[in-house]
Amino acid sequence: MTTTQAKTSPHHAPMTTLTPSEAHALVAAAMARAGHSAAEAEIIADHLLDCELRGLSFGGLARALSVVERLRATPQPPGPIRVVAETAVSASLDGGDRVGYLVGMRALDLAVEKARAHGVAVVGARNTWYTGMFSYYLEKAADAGLAGMIAGSGPAVVAPHGGTEGRFGTNPIAFGFPSTPAPVIWDIGTASVMYGEVMLKARLGARLEPGQAYDATGAPTLDPAAALEGAFGVWGGHKGSGLAMVVQLLGMMTGAAADPPGVSDCGFLVLLVDPGVLTDPADYRRRVAAFADAIRATRPVDGGAAVRVPFDRSVAHREETLRRGTIDVPAAVVEAMRREAGLPTQGGGTAHD
Amino acid sequence: MTTTQAKTSPHHAPMTTLTPSEAHALVAAAMARAGHSAAEAEIIADHLLDCELRGLSFGGLARALSVVERLRATPQPPGPIRVVAETAVSASLDGGDRVGYLVGMRALDLAVEKARAHGVAVVGARNTWYTGMFSYYLEKAADAGLAGMIAGSGPAVVAPHGGTEGRFGTNPIAFGFPSTPAPVIWDIGTASVMYGEVMLKARLGARLEPGQAYDATGAPTLDPAAALEGAFGVWGGHKGSGLAMVVQLLGMMTGAAADPPGVSDCGFLVLLVDPGVLTDPADYRRRVAAFADAIRATRPVDGGAAVRVPFDRSVAHREETLRRGTIDVPAAVVEAMRREAGLPTQGGGTAHD
Repeated sequence: MTTTQAKTSPHHAPMTTLTPSEAHALVAAAMARAGHSAAEAEIIADHLLDCELRGLSFGGLARALSVVERLRATPQPPGPIRVVAETAVSASLDGGDRVGYLVGMRALDLAVEKARAHGVAVVGARNTWYTGMFSYYLEKAADAGLAGMIAGSGPAVVAPHGGTEGRFGTNPIAFGFPSTPAPVIWDIGTASVMYGEVMLKARLGARLEPGQAYDATGAPTLDPAAALEGAFGVWGGHKGSGLAMVVQLLGMMTGAAADPPGVSDCGFLVLLVDPGVLTDPADYRRRVAAFADAIRATRPVDGGAAVRVPFDRSVAHREETLRRGTIDVPAAVVEAMRREAGLPTQGGGTAHD
Repeated sequence: MTTTQAKTSPHHAPMTTLTPSEAHALVAAAMARAGHSAAEAEIIADHLLDCELRGLSFGGLARALSVVERLRATPQPPGPIRVVAETAVSASLDGGDRVGYLVGMRALDLAVEKARAHGVAVVGARNTWYTGMFSYYLEKAADAGLAGMIAGSGPAVVAPHGGTEGRFGTNPIAFGFPSTPAPVIWDIGTASVMYGEVMLKARLGARLEPGQAYDATGAPTLDPAAALEGAFGVWGGHKGSGLAMVVQLLGMMTGAAADPPGVSDCGFLVLLVDPGVLTDPADYRRRVAAFADAIRATRPVDGGAAVRVPFDRSVAHREETLRRGTIDVPAAVVEAMRREAGLPTQGGGTAHD
């Protein structure tokens, strides 16, 4: 850890520079101290570090603090992750209110095992929260030679097209395809704005964009605090609104509630397919790669940049970060993480001092 | 058939009024005369009539004429539909260049049988064309208690976001969910304009909307004829472009080409799930219905109409048409269909006279 805070973020917060392994160790230590086994803490740290490497810092160390806060705010300890129904090609999990990075990986591992054995599998999990980036799971599935889809439901904070009250979650959906050298993964949220972005703008006193939110009375608003009391807009007009509905219904198929309270009972549905049950799998990988290349080579609009393929930027960012060997994290986040990990801070204190 | 052509279409073409059973019989007769068995002709007529009942006339009797033209223009007779690979939960079909209404139903029937037996199934079909409305298949799946997704690939006529050359098909994707009284089905195309709409505007000399197309040099165009030589725009900016890519990659998983020539070798992928392997299926049906009701009851935007749920309008239109007991079809289409069916026309001629 570089304790000189030479860097500053775009919001002028002092930054601390860490190596990836320092960041990983810090998250793992905080997660272990919050009640996870060493193996569980590793799973969570792997996921959050990948977010940092890919430049998605809101889902990295800063998110680790939200996880610890959520655990502390919940009086009853989380239960075990239970398989409540299972067949050769399916499983339904009760996440036991455990954090989604653990429940999601358990669901993914089961789905990969079943799809590799039988060609297709569906696994659903409910009673969980913070499942992270769906591309993280689909990259692992693609590494195992599988294509797939993941959909996630959550609290009703997004208004359907033409409406002003929350009905959908911010509802991420992602598809992944095996390919060489890197998989092709499409991973989007179906809201017009991310929850974390609204929270950040509320903290910074910044404004939302027109069309992104309604206040509690149903009037359009640019005020992030009013949006948090009202509803966010949906992405993509009536077509996008239909997709957001689809994702909520897929999540509800796990048994998750249509509108769970707070950060709880999100639904996480994984469907994986082995392309080898339909076509030659090695040929498919080559054709996916060639198709991605053909997209990149599309003649751009006049004066436009090269056409991009989803996930390319994420992979490039991760490679660049690993080459550089450092990540920059707001100093306040690192200090808070050190307190959660029970380590000495710059100020010399530890958690709850 | 009402031979007085009292009605006129929005484009002022004289219209002929048929009962649904007259329209069905006309399509079935034309399809039988084009080389289909009686059972096959029924399957095609069922699908095309449902399009007419739902008000999607471009996919109804007018489409039947395109089917007959495509069959006549193809020197080699279509082969049988063959299952080229199969497991308990999957099947891969070679459509034998047969029309998609037949191949799609074969794929759906196999997927329904497998998903009901095992909880989940994936069936892919390639080497087919004109698979029709995916909502048609998903309504049948929902009637069998199954949720599902269908994706279809086709010739590269749609440019990715930021590009001006065709890379994607018009790539429909649909999801369906069992519910009472009617299923919830979302069925969209990922292009900014439908192929049929561009063809129609070219015939009528009408203009496209800005952003819907590029000409062969990559310049934006409003001219439908120039668009047919160039590329259509994709729906939904970079997010929508990613979805169009996903749908093409799903279709290609059936073995279908990334850019097949003309009207041929489309890919059709069906994934079905029995919600009963994850949660209580009767409860899920009730929760889907309640969720759809909650969407309909969302407070609308100021001055806006009631919030709509996908498929509602289609079902209402079909009920209204059946109550009325008649459909109006351009007289020229009915005359041409009668010739194809070998029936006397208003002018007294039969096909190829």
